[in-house]
Amino acid sequence: MDIDLNADLGEGFGPWRMGEDEALLEIVSSANVACGFHAGDPVIMDRTVRMAQARGVDVGAHVGFPDLLGFGRRQMQIDPAELATYVTYQLGALAGMARSAGHRMTHMSFHGALGNMAAADAELAGPLVRAVAAFDADLIISSSASRAIEDAAERCGLRVATTFLADRACDDQGLLVPRKLPDSVIHDREAVLARVRQLLDDGTVLSYSGKKIPMKVRSILLHGDTPGAVALARAVREIVEAAGKVVPISRQLAT
Amino acid sequence: MDIDLNADLGEGFGPWRMGEDEALLEIVSSANVACGFHAGDPVIMDRTVRMAQARGVDVGAHVGFPDLLGFGRRQMQIDPAELATYVTYQLGALAGMARSAGHRMTHMSFHGALGNMAAADAELAGPLVRAVAAFDADLIISSSASRAIEDAAERCGLRVATTFLADRACDDQGLLVPRKLPDSVIHDREAVLARVRQLLDDGTVLSYSGKKIPMKVRSILLHGDTPGAVALARAVREIVEAAGKVVPISRQLAT
Amino acid sequence: MDIDLNADLGEGFGPWRMGEDEALLEIVSSANVACGFHAGDPVIMDRTVRMAQARGVDVGAHVGFPDLLGFGRRQMQIDPAELATYVTYQLGALAGMARSAGHRMTHMSFHGALGNMAAADAELAGPLVRAVAAFDADLIISSSASRAIEDAAERCGLRVATTFLADRACDDQGLLVPRKLPDSVIHDREAVLARVRQLLDDGTVLSYSGKKIPMKVRSILLHGDTPGAVALARAVREIVEAAGKVVPISRQLAT
Amino acid sequence: MDIDLNADLGEGFGPWRMGEDEALLEIVSSANVACGFHAGDPVIMDRTVRMAQARGVDVGAHVGFPDLLGFGRRQMQIDPAELATYVTYQLGALAGMARSAGHRMTHMSFHGALGNMAAADAELAGPLVRAVAAFDADLIISSSASRAIEDAAERCGLRVATTFLADRACDDQGLLVPRKLPDSVIHDREAVLARVRQLLDDGTVLSYSGKKIPMKVRSILLHGDTPGAVALARAVREIVEAAGKVVPISRQLAT
Repeated sequence: MDIDLNADLGEGFGPWRMGEDEALLEIVSSANVACGFHAGDPVIMDRTVRMAQARGVDVGAHVGFPDLLGFGRRQMQIDPAELATYVTYQLGALAGMARSAGHRMTHMSFHGALGNMAAADAELAGPLVRAVAAFDADLIISSSASRAIEDAAERCGLRVATTFLADRACDDQGLLVPRKLPDSVIHDREAVLARVRQLLDDGTVLSYSGKKIPMKVRSILLHGDTPGAVALARAVREIVEAAGKVVPISRQLAT
Repeated sequence: MDIDLNADLGEGFGPWRMGEDEALLEIVSSANVACGFHAGDPVIMDRTVRMAQARGVDVGAHVGFPDLLGFGRRQMQIDPAELATYVTYQLGALAGMARSAGHRMTHMSFHGALGNMAAADAELAGPLVRAVAAFDADLIISSSASRAIEDAAERCGLRVATTFLADRACDDQGLLVPRKLPDSVIHDREAVLARVRQLLDDGTVLSYSGKKIPMKVRSILLHGDTPGAVALARAVREIVEAAGKVVPISRQLAT
Repeated sequence: MDIDLNADLGEGFGPWRMGEDEALLEIVSSANVACGFHAGDPVIMDRTVRMAQARGVDVGAHVGFPDLLGFGRRQMQIDPAELATYVTYQLGALAGMARSAGHRMTHMSFHGALGNMAAADAELAGPLVRAVAAFDADLIISSSASRAIEDAAERCGLRVATTFLADRACDDQGLLVPRKLPDSVIHDREAVLARVRQLLDDGTVLSYSGKKIPMKVRSILLHGDTPGAVALARAVREIVEAAGKVVPISRQLAT
Repeated sequence: MDIDLNADLGEGFGPWRMGEDEALLEIVSSANVACGFHAGDPVIMDRTVRMAQARGVDVGAHVGFPDLLGFGRRQMQIDPAELATYVTYQLGALAGMARSAGHRMTHMSFHGALGNMAAADAELAGPLVRAVAAFDADLIISSSASRAIEDAAERCGLRVATTFLADRACDDQGLLVPRKLPDSVIHDREAVLARVRQLLDDGTVLSYSGKKIPMKVRSILLHGDTPGAVALARAVREIVEAAGKVVPISRQLAT
């Protein structure tokens, strides 16, 4: 079994840092790089892309709402056609960074509230996914389980790699449960690792309501901005390596 | 004689508009599109690129300081290596817009204070021009006369198209005179047109100090944000068409 | 009958202008000044406050979402306690401008999507109105008809002056109908004037559904950012002067 | 001898933190709070002001350039009259936070590049200091040694409290040496403490060129954003308490 390990990196801004990017880049096979809207700036993007490249790690654009203050975690009601141009802008900015560094952008993902809204709303997912396809039909969308995203991608001929967020609860459809609900973020290390093991064992996860639901994923998302995150990421990698191989989604999907 | 006519377009932001983009797009052969740092936003960039494409007008990235409040007209002392990443970011963003629209980005130019500083300072021009070359070695730099830019571009193998700013005074080296000096911006319509005629006639301009200096240009910059600007732009086009042909720089330089 | 005439002013940003502030300042008795979040910047705020002061026009803080790109017209899901600090910040900034100019801030109002959300949601109105009271218990809240705002203000001992938006449709409770609905913004000049006359005649307005509803107002909001707006504002002023007197809310409520 | 201990606090932004505010608030007598231009946001300002108030610590506005990306450390050439309105805006915002919390703003200081430029340039110091006086003639300006600031303040009748930056080298006039010069920031703990002792002993400091220069200060600035900063701050406090008393500038200057 091939599994991609990915993480959201480059989430600082100006003088401010977030997460342990260098340590995580030794563990992951793909990096989702913030593009300046919810986090990230040109200096940080450039540095993150070059660090990824030096380690043979794929880079993708982590696209969010224009809300640094709220870190892209607050819903904004933006006209989907306008939002589609925000997606294009961010894709272009990161692709430019990769190109200048001699690296390649292989994928993209939607961050925070934008990701949650698009995953749950076909009316929003459609224009956003079409914007990705219009920019580069070879890009892979990395997304938590979402029928809206998958359907939109299929209509455009885009590939989707489903990502498992081991420390986030999901509902019976696999959609992430909002952060404000109790226990939506799983802080217990052993619980997180158990979820990874179950997923690799039989391709299922326990939903927020306690149901065992099937989830077919190519990727697992690791977080780097909480205490113990790097050690947890290493433990997840060990579990994956015991069950199969760490392979970036771009290589899993190459034919 | 082939001359490109270009203008700085897409200089609104959010709900705010500036200039008469649609009228100018009927007159110019190249558009320099603001990229969100000193002006412009994804919606405006997308619209401007598509309007240009529909009229067969070349688009380029108009790259500026991150200073919406000051419209990129205020000097900022930014580390050149950091500033180089700001250039890459903006190039990528506009290239992405063009790519998504099925158009092509042919050139770039530096806006306002960034342009003035780079034109006068080889230490700054070097890293910025190298950032352009690293992004796309086929891009053409459109710049007012500047030895610093030309030398830096030559070292990278980049092409430069010198642009004449008909309504801005220049010093004996051809560098733009700062806006705060009296008569640095030429408001008199007939004076502007006389400068264009003289340039086309014998390849010279009168400097701020009154000296006749040679200036070899491929392009003339038209402004769209002052009263009477569109009529003036049309008058300049007529003069150019009487003396030669309006041809975008990308076609002048194609071989 | 005393009626305040007010307008949203200072809605430019950096190099960009919006509306005809100088002309409107000759017509209104109160100005709602943008505070830098959805529009406005320190230079514009200072200029607007001083122009108002020179004409004896009251100034108030026009408080909005932190969304220049969307002009504060897009809903944002922000924690009410956090949003309350955004209100305080904006009140302080405008009060500081007024104080430095030797003028006085008499009132505040909520702009755009923030105004619509607060007017319709007691859970949101409560913390925001308490933030106003904590800042200055003498401030008057200027608001379109809203039970949520009025109740929250009453609990804090704050005064509310209901404002009539003559060119915006309202529902049967007096709440503004969303801009995206057809005919929510009334463009017909005669229709707008007829609504003003009806309000002054018998204290009623026709709702979006066609019902005659009572509306007790102290103020009428004039717009300055559409063609013909200044002439329309003058016409409204004439109607008011025929029926009574133009008196700022601060003087109506003084005892 | 009475000495104020102050620190620059509230220097996070949105999700990002900087420095150890809570620990420093147990050590200092005055806090300089960032106002949203170079750092800080309404939520952080509110929290910082309330934490200061709970500990009886004075708050002041730490006023900077509008440059979050560069943390206000990059020079910007802004028209002094415009910059003066930026100062007023920031003073108002922090004063509003203090007022809403039931606290009081006692002082202000200029941050980073703005502070360095104003300290060295009477043409800039004049308008900025006048803006402070116009806002509140009772505010105290806290500044590193600067004749330009002192002269401007004297002309307005404002009080200045000179602050000693124990870990920053100064030139023979007492002006801070630019950060980019070697050894401009003193990292050696013992060297910093020795400078504090010398200042308290005989009122002198060693300049960058090695000259002993007199410096009359009421305050010492402690930093909180470097490793070991809190321990160093405690050590400075112990030295001050051995030589005299920790007293906020507002109380030193009260009569």
